[in-house]
Amino acid sequence: MRSHTAKLRQAFHIQLDPTAWPTRGLSPINKLLTAAILLGTVNAILETEPLLAQPYQAMFAAVEFWLGSVFAAEYLARLWSIVEERPPGETAFGRRLRFIASPAAVVDLVAVLVTLVPFFGINVMALRLVRLLRILRLGKLGRMSAALTLLVNVIKSRRYELFVTLALAATVLIFGASALYWVEGDLQPDKFGSIPRSLWWAVITLTTIGYGDVYPITAVGKMIAGVVAIAGIGLIAMPTGILASAFSEAVRNR
Amino acid sequence: MRSHTAKLRQAFHIQLDPTAWPTRGLSPINKLLTAAILLGTVNAILETEPLLAQPYQAMFAAVEFWLGSVFAAEYLARLWSIVEERPPGETAFGRRLRFIASPAAVVDLVAVLVTLVPFFGINVMALRLVRLLRILRLGKLGRMSAALTLLVNVIKSRRYELFVTLALAATVLIFGASALYWVEGDLQPDKFGSIPRSLWWAVITLTTIGYGDVYPITAVGKMIAGVVAIAGIGLIAMPTGILASAFSEAVRNR
Amino acid sequence: MRSHTAKLRQAFHIQLDPTAWPTRGLSPINKLLTAAILLGTVNAILETEPLLAQPYQAMFAAVEFWLGSVFAAEYLARLWSIVEERPPGETAFGRRLRFIASPAAVVDLVAVLVTLVPFFGINVMALRLVRLLRILRLGKLGRMSAALTLLVNVIKSRRYELFVTLALAATVLIFGASALYWVEGDLQPDKFGSIPRSLWWAVITLTTIGYGDVYPITAVGKMIAGVVAIAGIGLIAMPTGILASAFSEAVRNR
Amino acid sequence: MRSHTAKLRQAFHIQLDPTAWPTRGLSPINKLLTAAILLGTVNAILETEPLLAQPYQAMFAAVEFWLGSVFAAEYLARLWSIVEERPPGETAFGRRLRFIASPAAVVDLVAVLVTLVPFFGINVMALRLVRLLRILRLGKLGRMSAALTLLVNVIKSRRYELFVTLALAATVLIFGASALYWVEGDLQPDKFGSIPRSLWWAVITLTTIGYGDVYPITAVGKMIAGVVAIAGIGLIAMPTGILASAFSEAVRNR
Repeated sequence: MRSHTAKLRQAFHIQLDPTAWPTRGLSPINKLLTAAILLGTVNAILETEPLLAQPYQAMFAAVEFWLGSVFAAEYLARLWSIVEERPPGETAFGRRLRFIASPAAVVDLVAVLVTLVPFFGINVMALRLVRLLRILRLGKLGRMSAALTLLVNVIKSRRYELFVTLALAATVLIFGASALYWVEGDLQPDKFGSIPRSLWWAVITLTTIGYGDVYPITAVGKMIAGVVAIAGIGLIAMPTGILASAFSEAVRNR
Repeated sequence: MRSHTAKLRQAFHIQLDPTAWPTRGLSPINKLLTAAILLGTVNAILETEPLLAQPYQAMFAAVEFWLGSVFAAEYLARLWSIVEERPPGETAFGRRLRFIASPAAVVDLVAVLVTLVPFFGINVMALRLVRLLRILRLGKLGRMSAALTLLVNVIKSRRYELFVTLALAATVLIFGASALYWVEGDLQPDKFGSIPRSLWWAVITLTTIGYGDVYPITAVGKMIAGVVAIAGIGLIAMPTGILASAFSEAVRNR
Repeated sequence: MRSHTAKLRQAFHIQLDPTAWPTRGLSPINKLLTAAILLGTVNAILETEPLLAQPYQAMFAAVEFWLGSVFAAEYLARLWSIVEERPPGETAFGRRLRFIASPAAVVDLVAVLVTLVPFFGINVMALRLVRLLRILRLGKLGRMSAALTLLVNVIKSRRYELFVTLALAATVLIFGASALYWVEGDLQPDKFGSIPRSLWWAVITLTTIGYGDVYPITAVGKMIAGVVAIAGIGLIAMPTGILASAFSEAVRNR
Repeated sequence: MRSHTAKLRQAFHIQLDPTAWPTRGLSPINKLLTAAILLGTVNAILETEPLLAQPYQAMFAAVEFWLGSVFAAEYLARLWSIVEERPPGETAFGRRLRFIASPAAVVDLVAVLVTLVPFFGINVMALRLVRLLRILRLGKLGRMSAALTLLVNVIKSRRYELFVTLALAATVLIFGASALYWVEGDLQPDKFGSIPRSLWWAVITLTTIGYGDVYPITAVGKMIAGVVAIAGIGLIAMPTGILASAFSEAVRNR
């Protein structure tokens, strides 16, 4: 007969470990934690906006503090309940050490520490970088959905074809950029005055974004750009076709 | 033997209820009503244009008035003939009450009321909002086509994969926006001075729209933008591939 | 035994009628005529360029005259040899009358007449319109390829799904345009001051073109634009998925 | 029993000829050569940038010199070891002559010579062109992947359908450009003043790039642009659907 403490520990384990939860979907506590991660991300994003940072300074700090406490409590609860993991037959200490060293737990610990760090007076510029890491908490969302596995498998099964498409795209990029460097390099030196400068134009054209900060102005340059533009359609159609056939195959095999 | 009134009511019901019409396609009266809805939408759209509103004020008002009358007559005819609906075995009053409470009938009633509202002297700014609701009449077009069901089923059958793609896109958006906020936030504070500001750039880049109001100007910023741009191609290819395989499967099962 | 004239007429018929040509591809004379049509189109396009029109006036006119003569000769040869068409059992006059009235022959006749028209001194502005019709000669290219039939059948087999996608796109367009008219109509009256003006923005955004002549400047407007932008990806993915599955089906049935 | 020289020659052949390498992937020496080709391309690209060319002149020249030596040694090693190629039964001289004349070896020789050429004092402008040829070294990457064959076969198997799609796109381009030349040619003569000028707009619109340097300003022009924009979606969806079905078929046949 197990003690009350062990029963509570097991209950925590079932709540916290997505693989231990018996029914489909996430446990209530993991749903709350997911919401907390999303709220933390929104908080971190909005905090950077000067128009909001000043009037709502206190609110942002409070949300940050409370989320930090929640993530700290979650971390300790996981560390405590991890020994319930199946199969048994390992010391509690060894299992906890393995947990601390696991990538997911490192991300969790970072999520906790970024909240505590400001209290130690590190300068603002460096904090900006650490704050970005907080968004890694979103990585936890990946646990939520089994569909991600399908997407990853589909991409993996066609990695060679997708890589060749990328290589073809790179070749078109380099040749297109070189051609425009040669044709318009002297006319628009700040835009096409070197192949690296022309590559910016080539990427934004081949992906059909077209900001309009750089474009050819000569007839020959426009003809080359037209060819790159039409090649761009092909380089969108190719990976789409590859992925579509891979999805069809994956669905048939399921 | 049914009375003449009941026969007329049944004729109206067959004309007005798309599921009661015996042959394929819409009944003549429903075709006319569809045309009236489209005309009403065009009328509402053109009426907002100042260059047209002044010279053609009377015409817009007349079209609006006549369409309002048509929709009012349609509403009353539906309310009257709804008791012919199969299966029988409910009181006429109960069936009519159920009709009035149905979402489609509420949209119909709104379509009638927005025309009558101006006569009660509500101010212009509030009317603008109500006018937008009139476009909801287009929702009726959905009845016309059975193909919509296929599209909806295809999207539903892949809702998890599409959601994961959306979540991946959101992750790329947040990381891309954060990276450019960090790299160019000080150089272009009005464009990349906060993550919410950078998100505008990230959305317009990832969807390959590229207005050109915001773009990176440093070498590092352009490299990050290039990665986001190429990721954008993947995030267009992914849902397309998912939908293509879902359509293939739906067609095979049909 | 057929006369020499009849033999020549039959040879002409086999050369001119693509369905009479025994082997795959086009007959030598039809290949030359296709090249002449393409040359005529290029000539008509380049002739409109002021920088080329003045120095090369005589060359453009000469090419135009010679192509006109070729098309006139072709027309007469077709009219003469059409009586060889299988099955026999119609008067030569009736068959020729039927040929003259056929849409393809009307296009051919227009192709001949547009060249002769300048000699009758019609003013330049009206000629511009007629010149556009010359490009219709390209319609002949459609005869060349049997693959066109597959494309047309694929689109026909999914016409309802594609129409529903178009209707959904139109709904997104109207709602998006209305929302921005309401949010930014007063701030940018020349760009969002009416729903028709906003529709220009909505079309250029939903198709992911994004010229950058019109874009929202408020936070709310940018959020709505972001939703329209993401919907735009869906409205590109949808018809692509529909066509991909239709092509797969058509290829399996072949 | 073969001599030590012949054994060394065979070892070189196995290392250098991708088809002779017994296991999957590239041999260690070919991996190093691929890296050298990529490094040479990056070096050639960065060398064109004025901000880098001056401070790092010596480094660029050194990398270029060492890569040139590596490629020269590779060329001589291939020339020496080619006689080991199976099947035997040809004189060593004839086999080497055949190697020198092969397209791959000509590309290799050009890769070596472009490095030596600067020492002979050819002017800078002409060198720019030769430098572009160096990027052809990337053509060697094609050997690396068997997936390229699948892509090429898929495109070949649908070449007629893809050509018809391209022809339809060209027709839309010419008609769209002609329409805008006619509507806005007098209003924006530098942008729509001739069909060739309008074609630049049409290509950038149909491929959904939309730089924003050219766009219609009249209501009629905007309507035509909207139709071209929606046609552009179709012309992206069409080749994607064609390729997707071709990939599905190729995968089923494998």
